Amino acid sequence: MRALRQAIKESGIGIGTDIVKVSSFLNHGLDTGLLFEMGEAVARHFEADHPELVMTVEASGIALALTTAHALGNLPVVFCKKTPAKNLDDASYTTSCTSFTRGTNYMMRCEKNLIKPNTRVLIVDDFLANGAAIRGMLDIISQAQAIPVGAAVAIEKGFQPGGQQLRHEGIKLLSLSIVQEIRDGVIHLKDD
Amino acid sequence: MRALRQAIKESGIGIGTDIVKVSSFLNHGLDTGLLFEMGEAVARHFEADHPELVMTVEASGIALALTTAHALGNLPVVFCKKTPAKNLDDASYTTSCTSFTRGTNYMMRCEKNLIKPNTRVLIVDDFLANGAAIRGMLDIISQAQAIPVGAAVAIEKGFQPGGQQLRHEGIKLLSLSIVQEIRDGVIHLKDD
Repeated sequence: MRALRQAIKESGIGIGTDIVKVSSFLNHGLDTGLLFEMGEAVARHFEADHPELVMTVEASGIALALTTAHALGNLPVVFCKKTPAKNLDDASYTTSCTSFTRGTNYMMRCEKNLIKPNTRVLIVDDFLANGAAIRGMLDIISQAQAIPVGAAVAIEKGFQPGGQQLRHEGIKLLSLSIVQEIRDGVIHLKDD
Repeated sequence: MRALRQAIKESGIGIGTDIVKVSSFLNHGLDTGLLFEMGEAVARHFEADHPELVMTVEASGIALALTTAHALGNLPVVFCKKTPAKNLDDASYTTSCTSFTRGTNYMMRCEKNLIKPNTRVLIVDDFLANGAAIRGMLDIISQAQAIPVGAAVAIEKGFQPGGQQLRHEGIKLLSLSIVQEIRDGVIHLKDD
């Protein structure tokens, strides 16, 4: 997606060989107009699959999930939680995930009443690296006996295996941009 | 705000005397259409104050911050972070906060380059109880030598002191709904 690729080239910072820092517009600061364009692109890619619910995980996936849901006619969104809190009830689906960014394990949770059986669910997230977050959401969708129609991410790290594995398994996956390599602080993107 | 009040009455759950559970539409599940209506209401209330940036804190404030920013002409958003991660640099403003919901202290952080001096900042959040999150954001805005134009929240807990204290200090505060009391599982709202 052209506008996102341009933002990554102009404002993204490569750190080491595997960190893509896009905090100025995607996961700390938000470029609101760009996020609406991205949501529109995701919606057009998946509208024929008739999603009924957009699922993401807190926190950085929420903005793109919301703009995608809006572009699909104000579908409901559910964002899975990463930490327990006293206002979460026990009636939740849970699954264990490992965050690449934080290098930690966390429990992903979704209240059962927020995802009904047979609901057609579109997964949205900001990053795809090893695929742990998407796999966690697929597991929750499976526990709920709902139907995953596919997954969309803003940035796939093409040098990590998550994207290829998910495609190989037949998941319909849209990556709005794919980072091929990070070298000397420069982010190299796969051509559209 | 009528649509939000109606959603709270229909889907909100009162727990004990101080928990307002709105996970079906505001802070776990998101009612996308309602969030856009709420963002429009916040925008109309503050547009004459000419905000240039919408600030919130992860995770539950992000949706309303984004719809508010959209209604103000696609202003940029910054969401403050609650936890360190290896893709955050050290060039951040930080302030210590206590979460009412979680009963824990956390560090709120905002990268310095995301909030320039003299920027007019509108604070948005989902809940206002003791005001800790809003005070944390006011502190970050002050550290950045930026200008707070006011704060908007979806739900103020009127039986906790944060809202009155902020008003008393001259902060322009918009609460789209105010909970007066939680009794026997029923949420009693202040009349519009």
